[in-house]
Amino acid sequence: MTSWIGRATLNLGTRIVVVAEAGGNRLALWSEDGLRLLPAACSRLGGLLELDDGAREEVLSQVGPATPAAGVRLAPLVDPGAAVWCLALNYESHLAEGGHQKPQHPVLFLRMPESFAEPDGALHKPEGSRQFDYEGELAVFIGQGGYRIAAAQARAHIGGYACCNEGSVREWQRHSTQITAGKNFFRSGSLGPWLRLSDTAFDPYPARLRTRVNGQEVQSAQVDEMGIRIDELIAYLSEVTPLRAGDILLMGTPGGVGVRRTPQLFLWPGDHVEVEIEGLGVLRNGVV
Amino acid sequence: MTSWIGRATLNLGTRIVVVAEAGGNRLALWSEDGLRLLPAACSRLGGLLELDDGAREEVLSQVGPATPAAGVRLAPLVDPGAAVWCLALNYESHLAEGGHQKPQHPVLFLRMPESFAEPDGALHKPEGSRQFDYEGELAVFIGQGGYRIAAAQARAHIGGYACCNEGSVREWQRHSTQITAGKNFFRSGSLGPWLRLSDTAFDPYPARLRTRVNGQEVQSAQVDEMGIRIDELIAYLSEVTPLRAGDILLMGTPGGVGVRRTPQLFLWPGDHVEVEIEGLGVLRNGVV
Repeated sequence: MTSWIGRATLNLGTRIVVVAEAGGNRLALWSEDGLRLLPAACSRLGGLLELDDGAREEVLSQVGPATPAAGVRLAPLVDPGAAVWCLALNYESHLAEGGHQKPQHPVLFLRMPESFAEPDGALHKPEGSRQFDYEGELAVFIGQGGYRIAAAQARAHIGGYACCNEGSVREWQRHSTQITAGKNFFRSGSLGPWLRLSDTAFDPYPARLRTRVNGQEVQSAQVDEMGIRIDELIAYLSEVTPLRAGDILLMGTPGGVGVRRTPQLFLWPGDHVEVEIEGLGVLRNGVV
Repeated sequence: MTSWIGRATLNLGTRIVVVAEAGGNRLALWSEDGLRLLPAACSRLGGLLELDDGAREEVLSQVGPATPAAGVRLAPLVDPGAAVWCLALNYESHLAEGGHQKPQHPVLFLRMPESFAEPDGALHKPEGSRQFDYEGELAVFIGQGGYRIAAAQARAHIGGYACCNEGSVREWQRHSTQITAGKNFFRSGSLGPWLRLSDTAFDPYPARLRTRVNGQEVQSAQVDEMGIRIDELIAYLSEVTPLRAGDILLMGTPGGVGVRRTPQLFLWPGDHVEVEIEGLGVLRNGVV
């Protein structure tokens, strides 16, 4: 097992959400007793994630008073314009259930930020689809951007983590050799429940990832079971294009997706799905 | 042949470029005698493209004085955060040269805006690549956005057109079943030389598309040879996600790409490539 301890911060387990306000999105610190808005000047995840420890502490010390979470409208946990790079076929158990060979290189596609719902919002099942599926995944947020980052230096470029439900419309995914269309339906996935800033108390690899549909566990894997590692993916992608603060890497899903189960299990309006990763909370979404 | 005449504007053949200024990007009207900046309030392509005829004429009437083009630095002809949807395998001649069957649905992938160089800038050949290839294509810019647009209504959502060189890194494109990585190298493609606003005097289908490498013609096709039509693609994609003003559709490349020629013809530093579409000018890029 790889040990993967993030950089130090004074506040371990700092949780960030994006709040939709009339004047535009704001960032907020999430805690059990409510949300505290960050200064308006720091309103993009990338802007916060790329700060060095000192500047980040400064920003986090300037939060407003706590507002009960119930009175706040969350926005999707992704910056407009962020690149969301998604790995397919990265867990042995998922390869096996689909009869796939282990790929020699990362199998990558892009999702538009608009394909993600609010962390507490509903996943949108496309009207015509009868194969709307869940995929529980680890999301890695880029902190400091970079171009041609060596794997050995990759860790320093990680800004945070979250759970992801990489909701997929299977019929459209299979329309052609390229799966992109089926992976980009409006509000078909989600990220959250909050972004955990990288810190010394969290190592994603030992964490267990679980997905539940209407309370029934359908996926369970240790994050460490993934094939291509976070540092390898950062090195590979940053050879293609500069990674920017706020860009997101989705590390792939383990076995147990709905389309491979017997009987198959797809999502329908009224269902609720949870993706949980130890240390990263529980991402809960209904389906409409 | 489909006739495809755009909506009327008072100024036929209006050409728009994006200018990189110290304070941020600005839009400008391009003409032989120089560039005229649009009001700073209209600084995104999507913002201009979604205006109705009256509001657009109003903005275009407020341009500044002409500046010689030589003194101006252009920015890539794409809004940050725009979705760039790309069609693969959409011309019979390109299908044939690769031994591909005609696909039943659009074969789609996404390019990030960062993958495009300035219209007069250089394409970046990745250092390690020996198979950096050109692809001449028609780019269609969305004007008024929309969700679930019927094909019969699609024409009203087109804001403009440009030439595209959809530069492709063939080794990386073939790393896996998903071609996205090889299609997203930083500054590997280009859009331009300017955006032509949709008008009654331009119909893309009868236009001829030509690509030249160091003056040698390597691709020549009528745009009308494309398989999936612009209106079909708009209908298909807007079923997936709302299209927004400034989003771009790349309609695929005809036969004659470098990887399929005998002998193969790839791009190297010092080469220059031109993509020309009648009515849309000549997009010229060097290679570095």
